[in-house]
Amino acid sequence: MTADYFARHRATLEAAVEATRRRGYWSPYSESPKAYGENAVAEGEAAFTARLGKPLDLGQPTAAGWVGNETSPFGPSLGITYPRADVDALVRAAQAAMPAWRDAGVEGRVGVCLEILDRLSKRTMEIAHAVMHTTGQAFMMAFQAGGPHAQDRGLEAVAYAYDAMHAVPSHVTWEKPQGKGDPVRIAKTYRIMPRGIGLVIGCSTFPTWNGYPGLFASLATGNPVIVKPHPGAILPLAITVEIARQVLREAGLPADVVTLAADGADAPVAKELAMRPEIAVIDFTGSSAFGRWLEENARHAQVYTEKAGVNFVVIDSTDDLKGMLGNLAFSLSLYSGQMCTTPQNIFVPRGGIQADGGHITSDEVTAAIGQAVDKFLSNPERAVEILGGIQSEATLRRLDEAAGLGETVLQSKALEHPRFPGARVRTPLILKVDAADEAKYTAELFGPIAIIVAVDDSRDAIARATRTARRHGALTAAVYSTDPEFLRRAEEACAEAGVALSCNLTGNIFVNQSAAFSDFHATGANPAANASLCDAAFVAGRFRVVQSRIPVAA
Amino acid sequence: MTADYFARHRATLEAAVEATRRRGYWSPYSESPKAYGENAVAEGEAAFTARLGKPLDLGQPTAAGWVGNETSPFGPSLGITYPRADVDALVRAAQAAMPAWRDAGVEGRVGVCLEILDRLSKRTMEIAHAVMHTTGQAFMMAFQAGGPHAQDRGLEAVAYAYDAMHAVPSHVTWEKPQGKGDPVRIAKTYRIMPRGIGLVIGCSTFPTWNGYPGLFASLATGNPVIVKPHPGAILPLAITVEIARQVLREAGLPADVVTLAADGADAPVAKELAMRPEIAVIDFTGSSAFGRWLEENARHAQVYTEKAGVNFVVIDSTDDLKGMLGNLAFSLSLYSGQMCTTPQNIFVPRGGIQADGGHITSDEVTAAIGQAVDKFLSNPERAVEILGGIQSEATLRRLDEAAGLGETVLQSKALEHPRFPGARVRTPLILKVDAADEAKYTAELFGPIAIIVAVDDSRDAIARATRTARRHGALTAAVYSTDPEFLRRAEEACAEAGVALSCNLTGNIFVNQSAAFSDFHATGANPAANASLCDAAFVAGRFRVVQSRIPVAA
Repeated sequence: MTADYFARHRATLEAAVEATRRRGYWSPYSESPKAYGENAVAEGEAAFTARLGKPLDLGQPTAAGWVGNETSPFGPSLGITYPRADVDALVRAAQAAMPAWRDAGVEGRVGVCLEILDRLSKRTMEIAHAVMHTTGQAFMMAFQAGGPHAQDRGLEAVAYAYDAMHAVPSHVTWEKPQGKGDPVRIAKTYRIMPRGIGLVIGCSTFPTWNGYPGLFASLATGNPVIVKPHPGAILPLAITVEIARQVLREAGLPADVVTLAADGADAPVAKELAMRPEIAVIDFTGSSAFGRWLEENARHAQVYTEKAGVNFVVIDSTDDLKGMLGNLAFSLSLYSGQMCTTPQNIFVPRGGIQADGGHITSDEVTAAIGQAVDKFLSNPERAVEILGGIQSEATLRRLDEAAGLGETVLQSKALEHPRFPGARVRTPLILKVDAADEAKYTAELFGPIAIIVAVDDSRDAIARATRTARRHGALTAAVYSTDPEFLRRAEEACAEAGVALSCNLTGNIFVNQSAAFSDFHATGANPAANASLCDAAFVAGRFRVVQSRIPVAA
Repeated sequence: MTADYFARHRATLEAAVEATRRRGYWSPYSESPKAYGENAVAEGEAAFTARLGKPLDLGQPTAAGWVGNETSPFGPSLGITYPRADVDALVRAAQAAMPAWRDAGVEGRVGVCLEILDRLSKRTMEIAHAVMHTTGQAFMMAFQAGGPHAQDRGLEAVAYAYDAMHAVPSHVTWEKPQGKGDPVRIAKTYRIMPRGIGLVIGCSTFPTWNGYPGLFASLATGNPVIVKPHPGAILPLAITVEIARQVLREAGLPADVVTLAADGADAPVAKELAMRPEIAVIDFTGSSAFGRWLEENARHAQVYTEKAGVNFVVIDSTDDLKGMLGNLAFSLSLYSGQMCTTPQNIFVPRGGIQADGGHITSDEVTAAIGQAVDKFLSNPERAVEILGGIQSEATLRRLDEAAGLGETVLQSKALEHPRFPGARVRTPLILKVDAADEAKYTAELFGPIAIIVAVDDSRDAIARATRTARRHGALTAAVYSTDPEFLRRAEEACAEAGVALSCNLTGNIFVNQSAAFSDFHATGANPAANASLCDAAFVAGRFRVVQSRIPVAA
């Protein structure tokens, strides 16, 4: 059965491996809703709605009752309960499932992973609604980022894992010449051994997109995985676990290779799970504080973290002012700045910039950015489909508290959502501060908060921005310049600070978006993350090779 | 110049990459002394002798005077001094060298590494004498393990590093279809960025063999390397650093890409170096205590350790008793048990074993092992060429103290070395203990000390031995059995304990020897080591990829 899955998806796998090396555009999962069938969106919504107010029974070991208190940022409480994580039972179940999963072999495991991804793809619209009503992403984004783009990242992890394991032969005969005598012949066997149990700690904003790489990288390399979702965004990962368990059962493998560890804010289990010696691999997306705690305390495990960062834009000059402003307005508005890749600081030279319309002053640039965002969001019905909702009360409070931080360029407004009256919709707050006030802009202000930083010149901007990135982390940088030499210097400085740089984006590619198989998400080279999604290093430490050898007759 | 080196050695590199995937027998460096020229051994000895009693000036930054107090285990004091490590100056120098080294690019750096290896190969006989008179290895072993086999391991690391970096294209155009419109085109650049400064902490027994993998893996991936040799075995790595600096200079690159950090037992610098935040990668071979200290404290760095372990042999049955005894006698005697791969515990069932001559009792097996070693070493002139000398006073003391640990099977004897009157030559001590006396055999007893453990049966032996491996580490296991089912079980148990297994070795392949490009040395899957020499995981974490992207016209 597991072999069937491998054969069925082999062409996709080989194309995916090839794509990781070519790094051009490639995806097997459509980002067009139409591709999912005429009624797919409605059917997905119906499937989502049918889950509301009920327990989601995964058939996994638990003796701890039920938990669940998710509320949609668009208003309604989901009312779904999940088996409350019973740490001992989950760890025992994962350990019991490990030998069969390991012994399924590389192709067996990879086949199951590919089948899970295929089923996730078919359930995209249901998961899209689950993502929407937990993260607050507007539907189109919840569909794309939570569905095909997340599946892409999962497939990418499987491709890297397969490539790394496939590079080690399972059997060879080593034959050493012995002068005129017969050669010595030794038969050698190489086994791919998992590290132990994988723990995936999900985030509240991109539970599937950020969760799938670690989930599939650990699974493919033989590690059973316990998925610990954020209490505010359980459902998308619960559906994922449900599908994974179904595929495992059909393949005649233990369903407990994948389990859900749902908890509530009242009794969090992430630390307890992370510190269990049986946990050998941890994938985490979330706050810098907890990410650092894991890196410092979970010494027995391989820990992959994506934390927070202070992303930046440097405006040096442009030959497409309108394109630049439109692009920035979209980037700042998309999902209300709740992406780990959203720009926060926008450095503008005090002396102004050269643009296609001639020289414009710093004040003009600043005002133009505010106006561009304001205009972009002027139609509330369209605006809510970009902004989505604010995921957490903490982000709302942060937004309120940030208001006094600097000179106001654009006030944040609450918008009425035409379909969801209670939705927490906010437009971005844009502030202006002086470069000298470092304390005001060198910490991450997660949410719809952007800061225009008045700086001596664009070189000073690069120096300040990359210094902040080295100290506090950054996932993305954007630079606008018509000067190739300035772009070259910016590229070097960003490379040294470990920040992915986007130059002169004026069309419909945005600094906060990265494409699987082409863009590396995070570098692991500054405090924002200690790993990249996804590269060879992301999978290499998840398994070990253990060999045996025995002489054979000539 | 760096490009010349790459072109010159490209065929070797490509064959090496291929060899890491095929894992058959392969080596470009001859293990036959004859291949090095008629007078090579004498010339190597002369070059070594010419260095005695003099300072070895590497031309590297130092303000700390000179250090050096090496004594040959074969008797004479070397009298060589080295620039005493000036931690600040070394770190500054490595940092200053980093940009040029990074900017030499993948092929530039790999070419320089291959040229260094080629020069090391040409200087093999000089290095062999340096290895001999610091580690105590007999000449033939110092030549093979310290020369070609060490160079193999260095080349293997370069091959893995090249393969990993080469898998990332430097430039691509990403082209995403846009329905009927023109595709979006983005030019993307991927830069391989080093992590920082590499620190290689050498050991006293295999300074080159264990030092080269980390040295070349870090160098190839762009990290300048500070080499901190063991105070008792500085010369082999000092010559290596000298050669590396010469090649770097000739290539027009900063010599400080590689520096030596020699210290004395009076003022060790390893901890201070390891805790410098500029140090991003640490490779360590040595004691479990310091290895664990590094893993626990050098949190800012990628730490690769090879520590100690409790290796074992399980004798279940054999159809070649004589071959087994001869093979074991060699393994126990080679370099007086001072290999991290030497067997320590030999489990023998209390009920005896089936052998080709029929059933033999446990006492007979035990006595036969003692006699085999005694007979193998009965000719002192030949024996010293296998045993070599005891590297450290600590090992001599351990040997003396171990004498009372169990029933004596074979006493350790001091042998006179025909050419080196003061040499510390000792034959192995073989003891017998009962399996119940766990405290006596579950700790590592480094040196020429073997323990025959009387055990209920061979299954019990595997269980005890692999439990010890999981708790205290093990690098090698050997099993003798004529029962395929027992071998299968042993293989599974060793795989789960992360120990490389050798079955039924009776000829001239020994459990303590591993072949580069085929055998993985250590697995990283038990406390004996957190990494393997060498695999993809050993290089993947030494560099990061940072990208930039910019739209391009259609």
